[in-house]
Amino acid sequence: MRAEIIAVGSELLLGQIVNTNARFISTQLAEMGITIHFHTVVGDNKGRLVEAIRIAEGRADLIIFSGGLGPTKDDLTKQTIADHLHAKLVIDQQALSFIADFFAKRGRPMTDNNRQQALVLEGAQVLKNDNGMAPGMFYRTSTHTYILLPGPPKELEPMFQFEAKPLLAEQVLDNQLIFSHVIRFYGIGEAELETELLDLIENQTNPTIAPLATDSEVTIRLTATGATEDEAWSAIKDVQAEILNRVGKYVYGYNNDSLAQKLKQTLIAHHLTISAAESMTAGLFQAELASIPGMAEALVGGVVVYNEETKIKHLGINKETIDTFTVVSREVAAEMAKKVREKFATDIGVSITGAAGPEGHGGQPAGTVWIGIAYKEEVHTYELHLAGMRNTNRIRAVKFAIHYILRIIMNENRSNI
Amino acid sequence: MRAEIIAVGSELLLGQIVNTNARFISTQLAEMGITIHFHTVVGDNKGRLVEAIRIAEGRADLIIFSGGLGPTKDDLTKQTIADHLHAKLVIDQQALSFIADFFAKRGRPMTDNNRQQALVLEGAQVLKNDNGMAPGMFYRTSTHTYILLPGPPKELEPMFQFEAKPLLAEQVLDNQLIFSHVIRFYGIGEAELETELLDLIENQTNPTIAPLATDSEVTIRLTATGATEDEAWSAIKDVQAEILNRVGKYVYGYNNDSLAQKLKQTLIAHHLTISAAESMTAGLFQAELASIPGMAEALVGGVVVYNEETKIKHLGINKETIDTFTVVSREVAAEMAKKVREKFATDIGVSITGAAGPEGHGGQPAGTVWIGIAYKEEVHTYELHLAGMRNTNRIRAVKFAIHYILRIIMNENRSNI
Repeated sequence: MRAEIIAVGSELLLGQIVNTNARFISTQLAEMGITIHFHTVVGDNKGRLVEAIRIAEGRADLIIFSGGLGPTKDDLTKQTIADHLHAKLVIDQQALSFIADFFAKRGRPMTDNNRQQALVLEGAQVLKNDNGMAPGMFYRTSTHTYILLPGPPKELEPMFQFEAKPLLAEQVLDNQLIFSHVIRFYGIGEAELETELLDLIENQTNPTIAPLATDSEVTIRLTATGATEDEAWSAIKDVQAEILNRVGKYVYGYNNDSLAQKLKQTLIAHHLTISAAESMTAGLFQAELASIPGMAEALVGGVVVYNEETKIKHLGINKETIDTFTVVSREVAAEMAKKVREKFATDIGVSITGAAGPEGHGGQPAGTVWIGIAYKEEVHTYELHLAGMRNTNRIRAVKFAIHYILRIIMNENRSNI
Repeated sequence: MRAEIIAVGSELLLGQIVNTNARFISTQLAEMGITIHFHTVVGDNKGRLVEAIRIAEGRADLIIFSGGLGPTKDDLTKQTIADHLHAKLVIDQQALSFIADFFAKRGRPMTDNNRQQALVLEGAQVLKNDNGMAPGMFYRTSTHTYILLPGPPKELEPMFQFEAKPLLAEQVLDNQLIFSHVIRFYGIGEAELETELLDLIENQTNPTIAPLATDSEVTIRLTATGATEDEAWSAIKDVQAEILNRVGKYVYGYNNDSLAQKLKQTLIAHHLTISAAESMTAGLFQAELASIPGMAEALVGGVVVYNEETKIKHLGINKETIDTFTVVSREVAAEMAKKVREKFATDIGVSITGAAGPEGHGGQPAGTVWIGIAYKEEVHTYELHLAGMRNTNRIRAVKFAIHYILRIIMNENRSNI
């Protein structure tokens, strides 16, 4: 089966955004043994889109579209394909309810063009969108398969993975099931992870083992085929067990878990509350936690103490400690963590102090970070030496803090020095 | 002039890397007023590359290639184009010396396929590669212009900018200079901005006027050509004056300014300090400010007060105010702003309280935000009704807060109700 990906959107041709969807879909298809020969990007122009479709039909069996499913007049993917294939567009009731509901909750009127987003190709299998308002479509003719996906990666990626891929697998893999399972790591680098798992990766058959590094996180995707889900999962479980055996302490979650989400679940499951005193990250840690709905059950609040005086005055940090050790030190991190825990009366107190860069701070070079975690009778401290730019260092410090809190709660009580 | 970008490389089709080169080149061409209608990605396959070239020749005047100029047998861009155009490949002496020198310096032998990298299309203008071994090429026929660039972005970007672009400008712009200037807006939507400037946009000649919307920010890029820089700039200044006349109150900066950066400059220029009490955004506002180096001169710190009790206990918010108006209200926002200003003894106190979503909060639907800004004798309050997903709403609330602070300081002292 030959595939082509057509990304629809003038913003791509103007260079406003980069085509990460093509990359994502390509990885997914490669996993399934489907070959891609071309990527095409075309703008919000009906004539040129039709041209691109015709060219693709001449050289591919499977055509995957991203973008152009929104509510504005530039969003023309659906209508163009419908016209080209002489198919009708009909309202999908579930999609319409979802959209109506979204607006009702916000006390706002649903406009006509929002309603249009519930239109789908007649005869298509509708792909649910859990993160936006445009449903996707899986549409087969006697000669081609067309998959229509929304443009925003946050919508496209889960939709492809959970809605489109099973349908494709049915078709491509002779009713074999594909089962994919992602293991998420933090605190270990891509190269080191590959080294630890090298023999497994080199000898992979079923499941396939695909390491992936994005930003500062590393994942391993295990993909297995089997006649039944149990069969596929059983192949994965064995390899996963071996991976956990070797590098389990760096595993924080699976599939779409995020560090913050995992922390929220863990805190709530253990009935723990948390507060933070932030210097270098200036609120980014608390903000990251609050990006997860429902975090209010665990996150009480905290302070941003962005200079020495504020640490002394608003957190009660001992001036002598600062004078002796500087603000970027184990001692100040430990005291900040203890003091904020006390102040906010939480189970856990977290502190982050450091030099984000480009300048050094507290006599320490850029990239030096101290994290303090006060929990039960102990105050755990961690030192980092990060090598990136200012804001990469800040978010990495936040993720390391979450990673260490998770490890502590899971009973790995130790400072890294 | 219509352009097409053809990226050559199977690693793109396998999803191993993302096509940032297409984005970079697109931005550069947009600036020059050259329209791109298609991006194509094709693998290391001669037949399919020829097909892609033929299709591009039928629909574009300028074809820009990236990738496939390396020393391996998969690198076939040059040879394929040479065969297709019935052109010869000849050794470029400068390129050859550069390559020979590279190996001599390392005491290593230059192999045949390294030598091949010095081959260029006979009659092409050679584009120097300061960061790698493959020279680029600028090749014109009577009907088309072909630009060949190496794949690695570190080589492609400077080569395009400093070697290819001047040649293109000569050709496209008849030796004119191009001058680009971006105006950055906040607080006005893309559609509304276009409406205000519709006649200017519709009648544009020199400069061109290109609105761009990314995330929650809108920009207008003015691009002018002229025989001299003064001439180009003078054309831009006139249009900019008219734009400022109409929508100047939404302009916060130019070119690569960011809201946070602008705020930092403004606070420091006016010798103002700032603190914040955040509920819904949970530290995101302070973190956004701290993303700018040097913000410590203005940002003192603040609190995250993520529930009612914390607002009362750590910020001294009046329980009755909360009981009467709920936490998502003008009254609570105003009190939070005043109290944090007092507590941290800063010139400005900022508060953000609201319902990020997906749930409502304080009896208000998701997307409701109250921002409080205490400055001099006044407390300014702003109400927002945001329509996005949780984390989009949070960052937008932060940006609106920065936007309002800037306006207040620039003496537009008013609440928006």
